[in-house]
This record gives sequence, C-alpha cells and structure tokens, in this order.
Amino acid sequence: MINNMEFSNLAKLYKNELLNNVLPFWEQYSIDRSYGGYFSCLDREGKVYDTDKFIWLQNRQLWTFSMLYNRLETREKWLQIAKNGADFLAEHGRDSEGNWYFALNRAGKPLVQPYNIFSDCFAAMAFSQYALASGDNEARAIALQAYNNILRRQDNPKGKYSKVYPGTRPMKTLAVPMILANLSLEMDWLLQSDRANAILDRTVAEVMEDFLDAETGLMYENVTPEAEHLDCFEGRLINPGHGIEAMWFIMDIANRRNNRDLINQAVDVVLNILNFGWDKEYGGIYYFMDVKGYPPQQLEWNQKLWWVHLETLVALVMGYRLTGREECWQWYQKVHEYTWKHFADPNYGEWFGYCDRRGEVLLNLKGGKWKGCFHVPRALYLCWQQFEEGEGKR
Amino acid sequence: MINNMEFSNLAKLYKNELLNNVLPFWEQYSIDRSYGGYFSCLDREGKVYDTDKFIWLQNRQLWTFSMLYNRLETREKWLQIAKNGADFLAEHGRDSEGNWYFALNRAGKPLVQPYNIFSDCFAAMAFSQYALASGDNEARAIALQAYNNILRRQDNPKGKYSKVYPGTRPMKTLAVPMILANLSLEMDWLLQSDRANAILDRTVAEVMEDFLDAETGLMYENVTPEAEHLDCFEGRLINPGHGIEAMWFIMDIANRRNNRDLINQAVDVVLNILNFGWDKEYGGIYYFMDVKGYPPQQLEWNQKLWWVHLETLVALVMGYRLTGREECWQWYQKVHEYTWKHFADPNYGEWFGYCDRRGEVLLNLKGGKWKGCFHVPRALYLCWQQFEEGEGKR
Repeated sequence: MINNMEFSNLAKLYKNELLNNVLPFWEQYSIDRSYGGYFSCLDREGKVYDTDKFIWLQNRQLWTFSMLYNRLETREKWLQIAKNGADFLAEHGRDSEGNWYFALNRAGKPLVQPYNIFSDCFAAMAFSQYALASGDNEARAIALQAYNNILRRQDNPKGKYSKVYPGTRPMKTLAVPMILANLSLEMDWLLQSDRANAILDRTVAEVMEDFLDAETGLMYENVTPEAEHLDCFEGRLINPGHGIEAMWFIMDIANRRNNRDLINQAVDVVLNILNFGWDKEYGGIYYFMDVKGYPPQQLEWNQKLWWVHLETLVALVMGYRLTGREECWQWYQKVHEYTWKHFADPNYGEWFGYCDRRGEVLLNLKGGKWKGCFHVPRALYLCWQQFEEGEGKR
Repeated sequence: MINNMEFSNLAKLYKNELLNNVLPFWEQYSIDRSYGGYFSCLDREGKVYDTDKFIWLQNRQLWTFSMLYNRLETREKWLQIAKNGADFLAEHGRDSEGNWYFALNRAGKPLVQPYNIFSDCFAAMAFSQYALASGDNEARAIALQAYNNILRRQDNPKGKYSKVYPGTRPMKTLAVPMILANLSLEMDWLLQSDRANAILDRTVAEVMEDFLDAETGLMYENVTPEAEHLDCFEGRLINPGHGIEAMWFIMDIANRRNNRDLINQAVDVVLNILNFGWDKEYGGIYYFMDVKGYPPQQLEWNQKLWWVHLETLVALVMGYRLTGREECWQWYQKVHEYTWKHFADPNYGEWFGYCDRRGEVLLNLKGGKWKGCFHVPRALYLCWQQFEEGEGKR
C-alpha cells in the first residue's frame, strides 16, 4: 500500500520535471520571434531542424501555455507565449471557410489543406483556453467557430479528401467521439451546459457501448455504424495508447458526475488493454496491434512512443486515486519505471519521443511533425495534481 | 575476380529459389478460386489472414505470371493464373471513367478510390504483359487506356485527393518519371516507337538531371519543378531502395541504347547510395533517410525491407555484368550475404518482407497490403538471367 510520503515525493518529481526541465525547453527554443507561432522540430538539445508549422502542434502548444496560465499560475511570460501562437494562428491558420489547415510554412502560408477535422479540434481546445486566459473575445469566437465546424463535419471528418468508396464498408472511428468528449469538457465554460451535457452523454455511450468490445474488454479503433466488428486491417486494429487515453477522459467525466460504476468500468478497460498491449519480452506498450494477432499494417507497430506511456501514467494514477484498486498501483509502478527510464532525458530538457521495441532511442529529437509541447507537459501536470490531491485525501 | 563457375552456381541458386520455393508458394496459396483475383495477405506458411484485394498487388501478380509465361516458359498453368487475375481486374478494377481503384473487397466491390496514378501504372504493366501472353485484344485495350490515363494525370497524380495547397511549395516526385521510364520499356511492343522513345528521353533526362544531385551523387525523392532542393521533410528525403531501383531501370534503357556513359553514371549513383544508406552497425540498407542527417518523419526509417535489398542485388549484378567494375562485385557479395540470410525462409516458400534494424523478422508474413508476388520473383528472375548471360560472356 502506498503512503502519503510516496505520493508527496511523486508530486514533487512531476512538478520539478514540468517546471524545471520541460517548460524551459519550449520557452527557450520553440518561440518564433520573427514570424510568430512556434517551432516544433527541435533536436535533442533544442536546435531547430525544420521550420514548417504543423497546426495540431501549434494549437497544442497554445493550449498548454494557456492551460498552465489558467490552472497553475498567472505567469505573464506564459500568456505572452500563448499570444505569440494565438496571433499567428488567428491570422494564418484557417481557410476562407474557417476550416483549419494541416500545415503552414514558417511565414504562415498554407502547405497542406484542411483535410480532416482534427486540426479544428485542437484549435477549439487551444482558443478556448486562450480566451479564458486572455479574455480576448476574438479568441472566444474562434473557439466556438472551430467547435461548430467539428459538429458539422463529424460524420464525414475528411470530407472531399476521403479516399473511402462510399457504401462498401461503412465504418466509424473512435477518435471522433473521444475527442468530442474531451472537447466538450474543455469548453464547458463556453457552451450552454445542456448542450455540452447532451454531447457528453452521447459520446460516452458511443465509446463505452460501440467501441468497447464486451468479450475481450478491449477498445477497438474502428467498428461499423451499428457497432459490429469488421474483419479487415482497420477493423482488427487496437491502439493501446489511444484506448487508454480515452479511458482517462471517461474517468474525468465520470468523476465530475460522480458515476462510480463508469469509473470502475474505465479502469477495467485500462487494465485489459495493458494486459494485452504490454511487451512481455522488452517491456513497454506496443503502438499498434491486431486483435487477432495477425501482422498489423503499421510497420511501426512494436515501437514504444512517449505519449502512449505518459497517457497511461495519467490513466493509472487517476484510476488509483479514484478507486484505490491495487492493480492500478502495481501497473503504475511498472509503467512509471519504464517511462522515466526510456523517455526522460537527464542531460537536456523535454523527453524523447520514439524508442524502438527494445527501448533504444529511434529518433534523436524532442519535437517533430507529430511531437510538440503537449503530451509531456500535460501528463506531468496531471500526474502532479493527482498525486497532490491523493496525498491530501489518504 | 569472379569466374564462370561462380556465376553458374549463382544462376542455379536464383533459378532454384524462383522455381522451387517462391512460385509454388503463390501458385498454391494465393489463388482465389471463388471470386477470382489473388489473396496477397498470406502468413509465413501461406494461410490467408485477410481477403481484401489491393490493386497494386493484384496487377503485380498478374504481371509476374504473364512475364514468366512470355519470357521464361509458356506453361499453361501460369497463363491460367494470369487469366484468373486479369478477368477479375477487368471486371472490377476500374471506376466508370477507367481509373483504377486502390482496393477492393474479396468479391470485387470498391473500397478505396483511385486516389493516385500508381494503380494505373501497375495495371498498364500487367495488362500489357498479359495481352502479349494471351493475345487478348481487350487486355491490350485496357493496357493502353491505363497508359494514357497516366500520361494525362502525370502532372497531378493525386488529382482531387491531393492535400497539397497549390502554389506555396511546388514539388515534383521521382516516382513519376521513374515509373514512366520503366513502363515505356515494358510497353514498347504496344506503343509507336517514336512516342515511346520521346518519353524515354524525357524521363531519363529528368531522373539524371533533376533528381540526381550533382554534389552528393545521391538521388532525391522530391525537388522543385525547376530541380532545386527544398529544405523540408519531403525535400530532404532519400529512399535508398527507390533510388537504386531507378538506377537499374536507367541501366536497362542505357544498355538497349548502348550508352556506356549513362550505364557508368547509373552505377556511380548506386555505389553512392549504398555508401550513404548502408547501416554500418547492423548491416543492411536503411528504408528512409534525411540527407542532412535530421530525424526523418517515417518511423520505419531504419527497418530493412525485402524489396530494397532485392532491387539492389539486381542493380549490382546488372552493373557488374555491364561494366565489370570491381566495386559492384564487392558490394554484390556484401548485399547478397545480408539479403539471403535475413529475407529467405529456409522452412517455407516466399521470403520475409520486413526486418527491424537488427535484421530480426518484424512482421511474420509473406504477403500483405504492400508485399505480394512481385519483387521477390522479379529480382530472382533478373539475377538468374544476368548471371546466365554473364557466364556466357566471360
């Protein structure tokens, strides 16, 4: 059994890592003072190796600094960093119909079209937090516009860029209800509460009824619109990190609604996914798996990614704090040891992102096209807070 | 120095592997006798694990059996296997405008739209060989229709499915001239020779002037329309296997035209790419590299793929036969040893496709979404033929 002292030490560990090793890295190296926005392609030591601006990561960094300003401390520096991204994004991020591009060049000219709704999702999250931090009315309007875009486009997230031939094999994907659930929580201060509640009810039900498989207890990535399984690459796909991240979103919602059964069900799923997705030979959690054990189409399937492990730590500490279930703590310790050993960088700021199956660094970077200032600081912040809250209560 | 005996043994090795280990695997396990077409998702022992039909691979298998019928031996069985694919593809493979889909389900219903021209490229190759084998006039018409599709769509290969925002960063890609060069050779019996020659001249010049970098001697995957380099992920990308494959296409063309300078230039490029792309720690050729040594965006960058190594063997044995350059033979021996050790399967037919950086099997399959009956038999056939021709001449 865990004691307060251990919680207290863990809270300190996460706090120190966030405030002294991770945030300074982004504060120092990622700010583009010439054009606005952020550099995300940073090597191990923080040197910029590519200046393209990927909208997911631009918005995620804006979210991170705004969130910390809102929830942790009103540091003027953080608001300035947020403003540096928000101004750039408000000016360059959207097409004439208000859809968010996928990528811009350094100066803000569009490179990649708004080919799905995830750029809009991260824009809604980011501008909602920034509106709260800055009191800026334009930011508020941008957040609501993006949120409405997503609702409008949710049934056809890729629009005209979809390569799927209609009708042969209808399929829906976990990412859509999962992100809508998280977004509706994030934006509840901006939305009418009955509207946000209706969306939360619907998305929680969809995740836990349609994508959760009753037999295996695993979260599927793709099912038919009627929640049937599909025997094809997409239909057999399990993304352990994604399923586990979805489960802490669900725990967060269930906790606010004081729904103990739902919390316990989400914890069950986390544990099932870990039993299925843990690499028993080398440790760590696989990136992609085929539920039937067939070869997945993703060549990177057995790699160990930072976000998978960090989201798992969040889910486990949250699950343990909310339920006290011993299995959560057993798994927490195992995943903690693996994650801090392989992803933290004792020599430079921020964490490594990509390890091979054996846990050796695969890409010697701290940021790139898909890794920015988001999963590491968010998870460190959430773990720290959970340990502090847990400490008070035990 | 290599002697005739060694050439003769190598010819036998490749011949035996092709005829006794590789073709029987596809003959036995890949034929869909219920719906027509081929299964490509086959596990190590040949069991079908997925029944979707990917058009690249359907057409490539049709090409392989037709080519062997045309060039090696008029085995009735091979023509029947070809016909089983050709009939299925002619009926189900194209949309109403004659564009080739990317994927169908087992019964032939479209799953993935014709989102670029590569399906059409493999259809043109396949139906051209099949028309030659069968004398079928419809097959001939289908080949020409696909070829004309490609010429029409070559400047915008992805059409309306392109996610690139027009104008910000114009870029052209090596795959287009490379495949046009190969295709025009493949189809020369069907095309008017002045037309095919003009296309060959243009594509060879484009590959060797625009994509070949004079300074490093490396083949770039993407450049501006004016052949300038671009400092972005795509612009820094080197795909060693792709560049080397392009070079044996060029040697093949140069040999028919008796252009010794061009052959030697292509050999130089193969050697440059090998020096750059060989993994000095674990052996084998990397899949993707950044020319500046930055982290590539492809997480599978350091994996070792079957086709990369097989195309390299073809290029090296062809380069050695045509030039007698000792460096080709040194490299041939090194790549031969690696390739036969890691990809050949002494216990079952066909070869493994995907190894990790250390050369351990990453996906325990013989066929999948991208690996079918093509690179292994084509390379085995070409190496065998090169060794036999070399033997006679030395």
